[in-house]
Amino acid sequence: MSVADPHTEPRPLSAAGKPLTSRGEATRGRILEAAEHVFADLGYHEASIVKITEHAGIGLGTFYLYFDGKQQVFEELVIDLNRRVRRSMAEAMAGATDRISAERAGFEGFFRFTAAHPALYRVVREAEFVSPETLRLHYMRIVEGYESGLRAAQADGDVDEALDPEVTAWALMGAGELIGMRYLLWERDAGGAPPAEMPASVVDDMARFIRNALSPRARTEGPA
Amino acid sequence: MSVADPHTEPRPLSAAGKPLTSRGEATRGRILEAAEHVFADLGYHEASIVKITEHAGIGLGTFYLYFDGKQQVFEELVIDLNRRVRRSMAEAMAGATDRISAERAGFEGFFRFTAAHPALYRVVREAEFVSPETLRLHYMRIVEGYESGLRAAQADGDVDEALDPEVTAWALMGAGELIGMRYLLWERDAGGAPPAEMPASVVDDMARFIRNALSPRARTEGPA
Repeated sequence: MSVADPHTEPRPLSAAGKPLTSRGEATRGRILEAAEHVFADLGYHEASIVKITEHAGIGLGTFYLYFDGKQQVFEELVIDLNRRVRRSMAEAMAGATDRISAERAGFEGFFRFTAAHPALYRVVREAEFVSPETLRLHYMRIVEGYESGLRAAQADGDVDEALDPEVTAWALMGAGELIGMRYLLWERDAGGAPPAEMPASVVDDMARFIRNALSPRARTEGPA
Repeated sequence: MSVADPHTEPRPLSAAGKPLTSRGEATRGRILEAAEHVFADLGYHEASIVKITEHAGIGLGTFYLYFDGKQQVFEELVIDLNRRVRRSMAEAMAGATDRISAERAGFEGFFRFTAAHPALYRVVREAEFVSPETLRLHYMRIVEGYESGLRAAQADGDVDEALDPEVTAWALMGAGELIGMRYLLWERDAGGAPPAEMPASVVDDMARFIRNALSPRARTEGPA
């Protein structure tokens, strides 16, 4: 799994379009963190700016220095979660020495972020209804980096060149999404225990599946 | 892809728990069809029983012969869509002569149903918020049949026995879900044209990915 470098993306602005001071960025981050909890707990319809500002411990006026309203803070939250999940994946992959280890590490980074931020799934799914454009942006930003990573690995001979890198990127992202839902979020909901981790055996099983799917394969079976 | 036979599942009952006549089943089906349109167009919060009965051309009293209320008709709609998408997959797979053709045919059945019933995605995603138990039921019913099909194919030597059939079933279901979203629903939304079909090239690319992932592989690369 390969992802665009989230460090090179534009920095956030104030509601008036001005660059933020580092203190301003910290306050904006605090609002987004509160929004993550409020939207995940209550859903978009029940959530309100007042509940977000109460959770963040700031005044309503401060909120409006950074965001125009509920829809905008929701969209910025999706973009922020997207940037952070990609960073978690990129950091996990940094030490990998070959393609298959990198794939595995990328998904470990994804699952680690999901365990710490279960809001990711709820918020992204609600984006389908609240802001379809932001939902698309979320998926496209992950897929674009993934796809270019697969192309590079094909050029190096590490990934089967018969695979279409775009369709393959969507397939693997979907696999990771449902495996995260099933073995992380559902188990966590069932337990009521402290944050679950993805069981190592599931990561092993997934890595075996991905290795099979991606590795160059001797074409003795005839055309696909 | 293998799916439990939807024909053997219990038949629906009236709100009072009585078996339905064939005329009753037709009316119930008409209500579910109206519910599919209303929930997909408006979402759960904006949908109402009155809008469903208006769309179905029946009276309010008739609705309550079949369903207790909005939550129940929503849950029954998810169960009904689930049953029908599995039937579409099972019918598509009926003529397949080998495992890889069966996989491909199963996904073609899934995409065909999705093209005809784009509500499937919206309703299932909203189930995450409206009725998490029904969401789980939807996924579990698809995965259970899929998993047992993979186990049988492993016993026949048609699927790599190193793969875990449960994790593999979730991985492939996730792949199909996101590929359906990207290449069918998003294209359809963009075009505003008559119902899109999944492009054959995408099905080919997906089949190649699945073939790689599942086929028994000579283990010359060392352990996974």
